[in-house]
Amino acid sequence: MTDTCIRDCHALVPDPSGSLTLARHQDILIRGNRITELRPTGSPMEPGVTVLEGNRMLAMPGLINTHAHVPMVLFRGLAEDVPLERWFNEFIWPLESNLTEEDVYWGAQLGLIEMIEGGVTTVADHYFFMDRVAQAVEEAGTRGHLGWAVFSSRGHEALAETAAFAERWKGGAGGRITTCMAPHAPYTCDDGFLRASAEHAARLGIGIHIHAAEVMNQTLASVQKRGLTPIQVLRDTGILDVPTLIAHGCGLLPQDLELLARHQANVSIAHAPKTYLKLVMGIAPIRALRKSGVAVGLATDGAVSNNTLDIFESLRLMALLQKHEALDPEVMPIHEALDIATRGSAAALGMGDRLGVLAPGYQADILLVDIRGAHWQPPHNLLAGLVYSARASDVHTVMVDGRVIMRERRLLTLDKERVLTEVAKTMERLAQRVPESRIQRYQP
Amino acid sequence: MTDTCIRDCHALVPDPSGSLTLARHQDILIRGNRITELRPTGSPMEPGVTVLEGNRMLAMPGLINTHAHVPMVLFRGLAEDVPLERWFNEFIWPLESNLTEEDVYWGAQLGLIEMIEGGVTTVADHYFFMDRVAQAVEEAGTRGHLGWAVFSSRGHEALAETAAFAERWKGGAGGRITTCMAPHAPYTCDDGFLRASAEHAARLGIGIHIHAAEVMNQTLASVQKRGLTPIQVLRDTGILDVPTLIAHGCGLLPQDLELLARHQANVSIAHAPKTYLKLVMGIAPIRALRKSGVAVGLATDGAVSNNTLDIFESLRLMALLQKHEALDPEVMPIHEALDIATRGSAAALGMGDRLGVLAPGYQADILLVDIRGAHWQPPHNLLAGLVYSARASDVHTVMVDGRVIMRERRLLTLDKERVLTEVAKTMERLAQRVPESRIQRYQP
Repeated sequence: MTDTCIRDCHALVPDPSGSLTLARHQDILIRGNRITELRPTGSPMEPGVTVLEGNRMLAMPGLINTHAHVPMVLFRGLAEDVPLERWFNEFIWPLESNLTEEDVYWGAQLGLIEMIEGGVTTVADHYFFMDRVAQAVEEAGTRGHLGWAVFSSRGHEALAETAAFAERWKGGAGGRITTCMAPHAPYTCDDGFLRASAEHAARLGIGIHIHAAEVMNQTLASVQKRGLTPIQVLRDTGILDVPTLIAHGCGLLPQDLELLARHQANVSIAHAPKTYLKLVMGIAPIRALRKSGVAVGLATDGAVSNNTLDIFESLRLMALLQKHEALDPEVMPIHEALDIATRGSAAALGMGDRLGVLAPGYQADILLVDIRGAHWQPPHNLLAGLVYSARASDVHTVMVDGRVIMRERRLLTLDKERVLTEVAKTMERLAQRVPESRIQRYQP
Repeated sequence: MTDTCIRDCHALVPDPSGSLTLARHQDILIRGNRITELRPTGSPMEPGVTVLEGNRMLAMPGLINTHAHVPMVLFRGLAEDVPLERWFNEFIWPLESNLTEEDVYWGAQLGLIEMIEGGVTTVADHYFFMDRVAQAVEEAGTRGHLGWAVFSSRGHEALAETAAFAERWKGGAGGRITTCMAPHAPYTCDDGFLRASAEHAARLGIGIHIHAAEVMNQTLASVQKRGLTPIQVLRDTGILDVPTLIAHGCGLLPQDLELLARHQANVSIAHAPKTYLKLVMGIAPIRALRKSGVAVGLATDGAVSNNTLDIFESLRLMALLQKHEALDPEVMPIHEALDIATRGSAAALGMGDRLGVLAPGYQADILLVDIRGAHWQPPHNLLAGLVYSARASDVHTVMVDGRVIMRERRLLTLDKERVLTEVAKTMERLAQRVPESRIQRYQP
């Protein structure tokens, strides 16, 4: 029994060797929330099947944003052209003292709208008031891998509350929501707090999403203060013994690479290159990490460093910067860049067995990308197009878990006009900035 | 007498100190092909004025692409993940041996469509069969600064023919077309050929558009072969004595920077950062160049290195990379990036007195950028949005020389369906690649 057939699309699929290629003129059959078959188009359809015309568009797995702070879209454009320390202490953390639960709910919806419109079907979100983010994800029809960010300054009680959130929403929204513990970072969480986070995670059978080794001077400060790199702190506090997603790893020393390689079964890296350029954080050594078996996924980070939540842009920047940094244009070829954007990101969330591939048994998170725009023509090389020409605005149709949530760029779940109205109301209040009321201080 | 009023837009204009800012709720009045006034919206309109509703969109000067090979869109995606030497010798120059005049005409139209849709109103194009490019520009209603690319292997007769083209089209299309001499590069044109190019330019009262010092190893090869850098060769052959637009200058030595500074009244640099990342050419020292008075403009280069002709993308990459390379997030602040994208690019083409600014007396090349998309919300900082959030697909309306050529993303001059059909016909033939039939060899 087939529920839906996406008819006559060009599908991004692994070839027999595992390398991504384009299977032309395919029908993708879906039953419930899973892909059941890909086959050449033209076979007669069973009665009762809903047909979604693919119109020779490019079908690919829904994009995964492996590290974001979605509701931060509320502060978009408020912290420009400043160094990391001022970015935290004078902008972000003072601004965040303005946030209410209600703000987070509308901010999450705004960010989800931007992501759905850009083909992002799953987001690993690391923020506050996460029940409201979970509610927004549930309503949006997307997937969320959600962790309630917490600093040790808030105490172990707060940690227990965030663990309760993780337990409450684990498997929520019909399985579309997964959860994790989200201690902010080794420089804002003491060792006892990190250890307790790992214990909560182990107890709940979930993982951890954390910032670590974000930039090299953070790593060096940690070495100077306590003789340990942030990654070594993660090891010593038991974090690396549970599945751990690390943002951003731009400040990794050789001993960290070795340590992560030894824990590669548990550890993955979220890579957000636009933020790294804008805040001058350096470029994480993702090729070395991948070689040692560590999963690497694409991310945007929050919209106050990135300005957008556009994974196509992250993909393009990732590929271009790997060439630039390696001084080698043959590095990070198209098929590898696409592999990171699909299977890499799925693996980074520990979901490589069910997301990131268009194949029978995988969950039906599927984009149709419109390749008729002038910037795609002539279509000599559609895979090059995906990496180097595609725009978020080319995403035509978005399916998550077998359900179409955007069709011909029309959102079918969230109420965009309403969300924009609500966000506009809070804009002025949220832009107030009182440095003394910051929620935390950056002092690695 | 006013012909057209763009009513109630937010206009990107210089403040009294010259820094770009946003004047909110403006009417822009246009007579013929020029802006006559910007004033707060609300004044009654004279009868007979055509009103174009600005709908509180962002109005900015039409974008200028200071270095492209527009018809190369025909080869988009055919030369991926290869180093510069192979890119030329095994891909581009063999592919270009397939080109006919007719191909260039349709390719130019395809590229112009992509650029109009992305807000590019002027392009400095450096290619072959330029009569057909000029014809396409004339029909598109855009501006072209056109030079017929030529190698010394083709002989001085060919040079004279390209000079004849420059003379024929100078001031063409009602003044929308300007021309220049376009010797390819010091490594493909001998000194006599360069000298003759400069003489033709001086005789015709036009400038030169040339590739030079594209990458450092090109510069070092020149120094080794003949004891001169490519920029010194330009000086010795008289090129720097006429207005000269140089692509790309990623291989400049300190003595070149001094030399260019001394010739800053004549010399400008076209900056195409996406190509530099993709082909690993290094990043041109544009801040140092600007400090010494050399005009710097944004460019895409051809679509076989860039994959698109998207100046918003060039703008964003330029800003991000300047921060990254300088290791300083305060470098290249938003107002400076926008200055390069507007006044800088106009000055690079020697048109700073008539393009690149929304002010009375300037030519009416105006974009309306739609800022209602989720990726712009909330609109705390629209100038940050222009640099870090805007997409080519946000361009809503395009006016060139007082005439609307795209309205609500509908093209009003070129026939997109026809162009796509014609381009599709030639796709297979143009993808043939016979290395031995290359039009030139890269051997700097």
